[in-house]
Amino acid sequence: MIDSTRVFGDEVYEDRRQRLQARLRDKGLGGMIVMGKANRLYLTGFGPDGGSLTRFVALCLPASGEPVYIVSDIDQERARGLDVDFIPVAYNEGVLVAGKLVQSWPGGEIGVDAVALNVIVADALRGSVGRDLQPADDIVMALRAKKSEAEIEVLREASRHTDAVAEAARALVREGLTERGLSGAMVYEAMKRGCDMPQIPLVLTGARATMPHLMPSSETMKSGDLVVIDFGVGFGGYETDICRTYAVGKPSSFALELHDIVSRAFHAAIAAAKPGAFARDVHQAAYDVIAAAGYGEAFFHGVGHGVGVQSHETPLLSFQQFTPLEEGMVLAIEPGIYTNGVGIRLEDNVVVRKTGAESLNRASMSL
Amino acid sequence: MIDSTRVFGDEVYEDRRQRLQARLRDKGLGGMIVMGKANRLYLTGFGPDGGSLTRFVALCLPASGEPVYIVSDIDQERARGLDVDFIPVAYNEGVLVAGKLVQSWPGGEIGVDAVALNVIVADALRGSVGRDLQPADDIVMALRAKKSEAEIEVLREASRHTDAVAEAARALVREGLTERGLSGAMVYEAMKRGCDMPQIPLVLTGARATMPHLMPSSETMKSGDLVVIDFGVGFGGYETDICRTYAVGKPSSFALELHDIVSRAFHAAIAAAKPGAFARDVHQAAYDVIAAAGYGEAFFHGVGHGVGVQSHETPLLSFQQFTPLEEGMVLAIEPGIYTNGVGIRLEDNVVVRKTGAESLNRASMSL
Repeated sequence: MIDSTRVFGDEVYEDRRQRLQARLRDKGLGGMIVMGKANRLYLTGFGPDGGSLTRFVALCLPASGEPVYIVSDIDQERARGLDVDFIPVAYNEGVLVAGKLVQSWPGGEIGVDAVALNVIVADALRGSVGRDLQPADDIVMALRAKKSEAEIEVLREASRHTDAVAEAARALVREGLTERGLSGAMVYEAMKRGCDMPQIPLVLTGARATMPHLMPSSETMKSGDLVVIDFGVGFGGYETDICRTYAVGKPSSFALELHDIVSRAFHAAIAAAKPGAFARDVHQAAYDVIAAAGYGEAFFHGVGHGVGVQSHETPLLSFQQFTPLEEGMVLAIEPGIYTNGVGIRLEDNVVVRKTGAESLNRASMSL
Repeated sequence: MIDSTRVFGDEVYEDRRQRLQARLRDKGLGGMIVMGKANRLYLTGFGPDGGSLTRFVALCLPASGEPVYIVSDIDQERARGLDVDFIPVAYNEGVLVAGKLVQSWPGGEIGVDAVALNVIVADALRGSVGRDLQPADDIVMALRAKKSEAEIEVLREASRHTDAVAEAARALVREGLTERGLSGAMVYEAMKRGCDMPQIPLVLTGARATMPHLMPSSETMKSGDLVVIDFGVGFGGYETDICRTYAVGKPSSFALELHDIVSRAFHAAIAAAKPGAFARDVHQAAYDVIAAAGYGEAFFHGVGHGVGVQSHETPLLSFQQFTPLEEGMVLAIEPGIYTNGVGIRLEDNVVVRKTGAESLNRASMSL
């Protein structure tokens, strides 16, 4: 019995692993020790927590040959439905087991998803493996970035739930409601629908919405406020990420003006999200609209990022990014303006198609 | 304007930093680059997200002299209320700024909280700092482990909210309710009360409760099931962690028997949580009760851990741990039995006092 996140047939995970193995061989690597939870989930449909020395959990994938999943002994019951061999390990033994597995692998350095690897585990792993470790995050992230139609269907269903939660939030917004109260109600709504909640929804009202990093507080909504609501759900092993801005009572003319600019920036970004464009072009398209309206300085984050197994993945959409967009990429597009005590942001998840971008969301974007 | 997690006066954070500086000098370190979010929160009351090269956020604390907080430029508005100097940095510049700061520090290696430091950031930081890095997690964790009376009062208030959410959950448990439905309702209840929800509550029904790592699913509660509910709230920069087991309908005699054993194990552990005892003694006390009843194999995790800024911190309470307990430590005590398709676990947060352990929780522990 394993997690409900294993939504595809064995052949899908097998295919992903084989494509990774081919790329590891291309790079001359002997294999990869995959510790990142989301990467393990992508490659096997099973992503239990782990990542420390005392709970070393890793998919060990040689460049050629059969993978072995090292799981914590207390998770072994969950691992029984896997289509790859697994070894349950007790406290502290995982690094040694990984070292032994690598002995039979082809020559070459060993790839690791370095972002998930802290220096304590890395030192132990280097000692155990006896070969140099090399960051290989980008190889897995490149595989994850381009989605199959089956993945897009899961994200479409996830987006249907996401839209429903957004519409429920819109119906609840009123003077006197706290940010935390609305955020909690959104979690409840999503979980009743059978979704998970990877992160607490951001709900920021009035001037607080100009600081996109704040967590929901006990601040109450006031008539005339705009409320920025940014969240996603987990569904079938995938995550979404959308944003809406709602007015409490009647919006000011300034709010309506900013909403119009952000909306036009959003549509310009969508129009730029075509196969062959660079990731940066999508950001540029939104920036140009906002800058032309005089608010360039007030749009201080990238216009978006990929969504998939995680709500934030590659490609990133900002000026520095020259990744070419491809058909099947799923992007979160989220322009915003934060100025004079007013914050406004709009975000959909869209699929890059040959003919342009297809939005997965239907929830109204109006204030 | 900064976060609501800065609940104490400046002098509390100043005192914590000075005690850390004294320990850094004792160890011959030149200072510490504190990247871990919870450690930054403990030392300044401000803990914005960060930890990657592109969002390098760190409290840079020399062994002698004034600390400087490196924050992301998009968080600078939030940092204005801090009582330490801060430097907002753009994309990728944080590591270079840290290197420059270290040039004026006393000699010696530089401490890092290594668990929070991935190998990518570590390599960049070593290059920038030009001195060896040394794990210093244990120094900060030792400071955090022993709580002041003011911290205990915050945890007491947090526990009051936690108990209320547990009692609300008990009132909702009924046949046909899904695990996710109850988990979401608990989040809503906590957030309406003004608390945060650091993690989605675990709600596991029937045989699923024998695998303590599962996330809540759309499985429904059935008459005769036991439901294990394990969660905590965030409040004032601190987190709690409790567990209750509730019966759906009338519990079986087997359930009542196991409940009695776990309850006795819980009280034995509480009685063993005295100043001067080793952490392992608390585990042993619970284990002895459960093993004497014939279920030693079915209690396969440590009996607990510290709680504070994070719901899981030092000391760990398991056979391998020889940390001496001290007055003012706050512990989560959580014995459990998982056997024959039934899971049961009970957990309170308790303060180690001279005269024994004082529980912070009042919610009923009965089935």
